[in-house]
Amino acid sequence: MSKYDIIVLGSGPGGYVTAIRASQLGFKTAIVEKENLGGVCLNWGCIPTKALLKSAQVFEYLKHAEDYGLKVTDAEHDFDAVVKRSRNVADGMSKGVQFLLKKNKVDVIDGFGKLKPGKKIDVDGTEYSADNIIIATGARSRELPNLPQDGKKVIGYRQALTLKEQPKKMIVVGSGAIGVEFAYFYNSMGTDVTIVEYLPNIVPVEDEDVSKLVERSFKKSGIKVMTSAEVTTVDTSGEGVKATVKTSKGEEVLEADIILSAVGIKTNIENIGLEDVGIVVDRDKVIVNDFYQTNIPGYFAIGDITPGPALAHVASAEGILCVEKLAGQHVEALDYGNIPGCTYCTPEIASVGITEKQAKEQGLDVKIGKFPFSASGKASAGGNKEGFVKVIFDAKYGEWLGCHMVGAGVTDMIAEAVLGRKLETTGHEVLKTIHPHPTMSEAVMEAVAAAYDEVIHI
Amino acid sequence: MSKYDIIVLGSGPGGYVTAIRASQLGFKTAIVEKENLGGVCLNWGCIPTKALLKSAQVFEYLKHAEDYGLKVTDAEHDFDAVVKRSRNVADGMSKGVQFLLKKNKVDVIDGFGKLKPGKKIDVDGTEYSADNIIIATGARSRELPNLPQDGKKVIGYRQALTLKEQPKKMIVVGSGAIGVEFAYFYNSMGTDVTIVEYLPNIVPVEDEDVSKLVERSFKKSGIKVMTSAEVTTVDTSGEGVKATVKTSKGEEVLEADIILSAVGIKTNIENIGLEDVGIVVDRDKVIVNDFYQTNIPGYFAIGDITPGPALAHVASAEGILCVEKLAGQHVEALDYGNIPGCTYCTPEIASVGITEKQAKEQGLDVKIGKFPFSASGKASAGGNKEGFVKVIFDAKYGEWLGCHMVGAGVTDMIAEAVLGRKLETTGHEVLKTIHPHPTMSEAVMEAVAAAYDEVIHI
Repeated sequence: MSKYDIIVLGSGPGGYVTAIRASQLGFKTAIVEKENLGGVCLNWGCIPTKALLKSAQVFEYLKHAEDYGLKVTDAEHDFDAVVKRSRNVADGMSKGVQFLLKKNKVDVIDGFGKLKPGKKIDVDGTEYSADNIIIATGARSRELPNLPQDGKKVIGYRQALTLKEQPKKMIVVGSGAIGVEFAYFYNSMGTDVTIVEYLPNIVPVEDEDVSKLVERSFKKSGIKVMTSAEVTTVDTSGEGVKATVKTSKGEEVLEADIILSAVGIKTNIENIGLEDVGIVVDRDKVIVNDFYQTNIPGYFAIGDITPGPALAHVASAEGILCVEKLAGQHVEALDYGNIPGCTYCTPEIASVGITEKQAKEQGLDVKIGKFPFSASGKASAGGNKEGFVKVIFDAKYGEWLGCHMVGAGVTDMIAEAVLGRKLETTGHEVLKTIHPHPTMSEAVMEAVAAAYDEVIHI
Repeated sequence: MSKYDIIVLGSGPGGYVTAIRASQLGFKTAIVEKENLGGVCLNWGCIPTKALLKSAQVFEYLKHAEDYGLKVTDAEHDFDAVVKRSRNVADGMSKGVQFLLKKNKVDVIDGFGKLKPGKKIDVDGTEYSADNIIIATGARSRELPNLPQDGKKVIGYRQALTLKEQPKKMIVVGSGAIGVEFAYFYNSMGTDVTIVEYLPNIVPVEDEDVSKLVERSFKKSGIKVMTSAEVTTVDTSGEGVKATVKTSKGEEVLEADIILSAVGIKTNIENIGLEDVGIVVDRDKVIVNDFYQTNIPGYFAIGDITPGPALAHVASAEGILCVEKLAGQHVEALDYGNIPGCTYCTPEIASVGITEKQAKEQGLDVKIGKFPFSASGKASAGGNKEGFVKVIFDAKYGEWLGCHMVGAGVTDMIAEAVLGRKLETTGHEVLKTIHPHPTMSEAVMEAVAAAYDEVIHI
């Protein structure tokens, strides 16, 4: 029986990063993967969607070439080629993970791993043991009882990435990051898209100003948006699919070729031996302490399978922290209040901290500043005038409570706010940090200036 | 005679921002402008060049549409339309400045202002007086003795922005930000471009690794690059222009339609009355203290006309600081060691702090980390694998000495490093700041990890 210091179960961005860091720290490490190295994020999530979205973004440039003084005769997309590019990018990244694991001397065990008591793990009949086992099995598309996925007419994100044929009409149920990214992509490709969102706003975790702007933008680009709306029944018996949607105005039947269900995730906790070992699960999540230890010594869990936001960067950070703690390093628990979230449709969305509504609900006295990209020179030059940066500061102590961005390139701009908040910056310090001109990043400085009534450009 | 609290001479990004902030602080303020509100930056520099570069960038997408699974027949540019778009953007921004000045109750005085003793200023025969005068007359294209600009065959940036006809062949002398931006733009439009740089590297103020990558990238895209090369004579007598270029290998005569001279700037200190007032000028710059006061009480100077980097964002920051000090606010002198610089060719360049070479020259013990975008998932998905982030930390104290970026979108990413350095971050804090996945900004975190031997993805 092979013995390791650490075995990681699952090779998503939680698992493989954890295994690499563990090996760097001197642990003899193995990782178990049942399918593709890199997990959902790399093979069926973050990465291939970004490839599709880039094709869509370039296609938009082709369609609007005249805006930039350019001419094209016929701009077309080759749906197969767009999907193929996305798969190639994902495959390349997965091979990259294989290379990284090998370089870092992590043993890769192919197969379905099942936890056993006594810090053992069974992989398709072969038993491995370790001083510590880290569970990182992640999650999958959640199925609603009234919206069962058949993988053909009612699909999840996974099928949405590799459709053989572009649907003419598509209903997207749910408007979190996954829902709006696919809605934007398919609409850009020419599919007739309707979003059905249960809550009053699309991208409902974002600040309401952001939700409203994205809804306006989506509608302008031809996407139909139904909010406070619920799919009650689905009929797949005919040629396409019929969805009955209930809103405050009554019921309506929508027809489409395909329904994409993007209503959240379901953790992969089944059949991996949690019960045999006696690991406590609550509301679909494995319960862990600040350093990701479960109730059973020697068993840890990180990533989507644990409470906290189900995001790749969170899983990676949790795994690194977990093994650094095991290595005896001095580590601080993650600050779950300072985790950025990004959505890569056009306009892009990026945010960190609390929203204006949350601040009000918490009874906080705040200073709020907002700077629209329409007032930015770089945005004008780039043709990216849609969007804004909104900042929220505590009025009394100057704490940077929240930063909400929507517009071109903001997913790469939010890091400034995350670092600033980590370093406990005040608004004044951000304001006196010289941002280069002309950049979109000036909008952060100007939004802060607006919060303190010192804004120059509005 | 009209009397003001503050009169600002020149309405570039130094002057107009200063005037707005002065008025916000309660000063009765006027601004004098001889030409276009917004100055060179807005009308003939930062903004219109970014518009041209955006057209070039979109044109590149058109030319490489197949890489994204897209098809175009006949991708063409309309040079006039590209230039016209750029002029429209600049004109729109200039009108924006007019609006902002009006909104902020700043009086605009049209005409050529000349300083007079006794805190007076003469504008085309009308005299105005103020408690404080702030000189912000900026700079223009520098002319070399052996490369006199005739505005037709030998031009500066100003003519390069509005050529009636696209040149077939162009020589760009000097490879700072202005030189390489125009070289990239014209090459992208189909002009045969040769860069002649006096120093051994192009973009010579940047870290050598950045210079080398940009040179490789430029050569790959068809730009000819001559370094350690000097234009000794120019002959404009024939149809085009002939430039004799001296290199270590001897002399060579290049022929072209146009030579763009981009060898730096010359301050606008002539005929504005500096001598009449007795204001001290040294090596082409007005000498000022930490709060921009000249040797004569009541006369201040900011921006390109003073020592320090001739950048729009520096001029704005200096002007704000100057008037906040005049208003009696507690202000700290600018940290000239923490000013970012950006260049917007493809690949983009952004940097702050010292280079590796400077660190070595200063005898510093450093930790250096570099993360290539070729190892970034977002870069792969976006087709932006060219470039890297390089970070330099002091080995003993952990101070973030320098950050050098080259690649897509880095001009919007450098703000994180500037803010981090302002807040005196350590590498460890950057490393433990959760950067969203998948973004280009992860490269900052990974470069820091590389400096401390904790990198995951290389």
